[in-house]
Amino acid sequence: MATDGTFHPVSGGVTAAPGFLAASVHCGIKPENLKRADLALLCSDGAAVAAATFTTNKIKAAPVKVSAAHLRTADLRAVVLNSGNANACTGLDGIEHAKRMARAVGWALNLRERQVLVCSTGRIGVPLPIEQIETGIAKAATVLSSAGGKGAARAIMTSDTFPKEIAFRETLSDGRVFTLGGMAKGAGMINPNMATMLSILTTDVPIDKKELQRALVVAVEQSFNRITVDGDMSTNDTVILLANGRAGGPNLTPGDADFAWFQATLNHATRNLARMIVEDGEGVSRFVEVYVSGAATFQDARKAAEAVANSALVKCAWYGGDPNWGRIVDALGYSTAALREEMIDIYYNGLIAVKGGMASKTPLNKLQEVVQRRKFTVHIHLGLGSAEYVVYTTDFTPEYVRLNKGE
Amino acid sequence: MATDGTFHPVSGGVTAAPGFLAASVHCGIKPENLKRADLALLCSDGAAVAAATFTTNKIKAAPVKVSAAHLRTADLRAVVLNSGNANACTGLDGIEHAKRMARAVGWALNLRERQVLVCSTGRIGVPLPIEQIETGIAKAATVLSSAGGKGAARAIMTSDTFPKEIAFRETLSDGRVFTLGGMAKGAGMINPNMATMLSILTTDVPIDKKELQRALVVAVEQSFNRITVDGDMSTNDTVILLANGRAGGPNLTPGDADFAWFQATLNHATRNLARMIVEDGEGVSRFVEVYVSGAATFQDARKAAEAVANSALVKCAWYGGDPNWGRIVDALGYSTAALREEMIDIYYNGLIAVKGGMASKTPLNKLQEVVQRRKFTVHIHLGLGSAEYVVYTTDFTPEYVRLNKGE
Repeated sequence: MATDGTFHPVSGGVTAAPGFLAASVHCGIKPENLKRADLALLCSDGAAVAAATFTTNKIKAAPVKVSAAHLRTADLRAVVLNSGNANACTGLDGIEHAKRMARAVGWALNLRERQVLVCSTGRIGVPLPIEQIETGIAKAATVLSSAGGKGAARAIMTSDTFPKEIAFRETLSDGRVFTLGGMAKGAGMINPNMATMLSILTTDVPIDKKELQRALVVAVEQSFNRITVDGDMSTNDTVILLANGRAGGPNLTPGDADFAWFQATLNHATRNLARMIVEDGEGVSRFVEVYVSGAATFQDARKAAEAVANSALVKCAWYGGDPNWGRIVDALGYSTAALREEMIDIYYNGLIAVKGGMASKTPLNKLQEVVQRRKFTVHIHLGLGSAEYVVYTTDFTPEYVRLNKGE
Repeated sequence: MATDGTFHPVSGGVTAAPGFLAASVHCGIKPENLKRADLALLCSDGAAVAAATFTTNKIKAAPVKVSAAHLRTADLRAVVLNSGNANACTGLDGIEHAKRMARAVGWALNLRERQVLVCSTGRIGVPLPIEQIETGIAKAATVLSSAGGKGAARAIMTSDTFPKEIAFRETLSDGRVFTLGGMAKGAGMINPNMATMLSILTTDVPIDKKELQRALVVAVEQSFNRITVDGDMSTNDTVILLANGRAGGPNLTPGDADFAWFQATLNHATRNLARMIVEDGEGVSRFVEVYVSGAATFQDARKAAEAVANSALVKCAWYGGDPNWGRIVDALGYSTAALREEMIDIYYNGLIAVKGGMASKTPLNKLQEVVQRRKFTVHIHLGLGSAEYVVYTTDFTPEYVRLNKGE
């Protein structure tokens, strides 16, 4: 077993794990002249269990409502995804359309409607062109392939500039080999023209459905949840993990080292996919890790980190390469986190900028040199306790505003 | 007595009310070559009472701490303000500097230090050039004038493009005439290079100090608090109201019509100053009133309005003149306000865009025509109760990001 940080990447993304097949087609949601794939189909060729986390937004798109209901199915086999249309704010027709997507997959693959999950991403409030999608699903079902992962990762892109996929193959203590792969598309905060964050992961570990769900929640908390700030989740955000047990042997058991290794691999994969989403910020120029330590409570650490990462003023200063820590202190002050001004230290890539709530002796040009880099870390130490939190974010740029100004 | 909405404007701003004098000088905080005034002094030539509201930010600038302590003084005579330096995150030296500013006014005007309030606005974390400021205060004290209001309004500007002042002269039921005037400078959310929002108001009504404070809190809640979103208050935000009783007669009494008329005038003045701040959004292109009605509770209405007004995606869409109501629904969904999707209606200047949570029949080009105007109203009806809230905000523009990228 490798130690943390030494995972073994393989190619194949969401179809890297044995028994998973995928296909992608252009069904006509995206403009005909582009001919870009806008529909992806993923399935397990045998029994599988599924876990999922959905947006906490109170307005949930129809596919989220349908998938949340279907998630209770014990043997969950397939996921169908479309880009270009969110099927959100589409009323009862939207629900019917999401169900028809699942049903079309069922017809094509000889599954029940409830064995299929549905994801959509794109513009809100526009009726889904359901007949075109049904035709697309039938077509996709005929071209399912264990080499289809890359195509699926492309088909779910909206404003993403590159497909995001990853896979690892690891060995358990008894010599069993397992594979975990996944794909993702961009998040609102980063490049939010099409604001949904979707990720689908697959693995061949044998695992109980409830344990799979627990493992996914842990992984999402330290990855995708760290790139969505301040509850700003879209109507469609979804993360799904399918496990088909193809690696064989007894189910992984929480508490043993093999389960821990699976969890570590899952954490690593989701963290990497989340980073890819941040780094695909079209129109942004800096990628910033905001690390808060020394908070009195976990919630304080989180509120402090999110207030800084979400401050338009802080983000504008980063764009300008300006180590304007006053704006960071300002954001900390309104974050509602417990604070004592004279205890606050702030570092840029380890260089101290604020000591005890006041300017440090570090020359401005040294700090500027850090903030003018493409990637850097802002470390805020609150000096009140031992809780910490990290979020990954970007700057604001004029280009960002232009790219997000509308259709 | 005039009815609400028919107030009587006069010139003079913060020195419009009898007995108030102001002066402004360049003392050297702002660059010497600009020679722009950076220090303002305001005083009452006789006894006065003061009310004030300060930032809710947990990190408070030194002048805020000193002014909050001085506010308890019964006979409060003067306010000294500097721009270009916030005197925030400056430790114990900062406190000493703020006190020295009050003391310098005391020396010059034969007052006690505690009879003087202090305001600063500008960059955080830089020591105040206190000797220059003391020299400036001594100089300002020699040129105090009842015509000094305009100059004072100019001296407190940072990135503001025009001075903001207003004054009204109204008649009470017994024929007494009173004057209320004020000045303000820009707020963070709007044009946040120098993010502080300051406003100083003066009046000659006779009024008890406690009642003056209550009246100011009421006025601030429906004006300046409606242009600062989501707790995003700077370290220095301050609103001060001085009353010198020069209009004569008995104190205004809460509950009687004259008090109500004074309150209405104060509300009108603060609302107008707040609007001026929004409309001085250098680099922004649209001014938007976000009005939420039909909320289950006041807090729900407020959270919903602030989530929409604070959404970077919504603001980018407005910049593009795109009536992308999906982004508004998305923001409502993560606002934590109580919602039922199928009850939500959204209007742009009265044109219905969303009916029952879904797209209305209004043609897109009609909605675009509204969102492409310089000013418009977004009215969100939640259909759950009778609570309402209004905030005033702007779009995000590439120019906004450029102007706020640093020094």
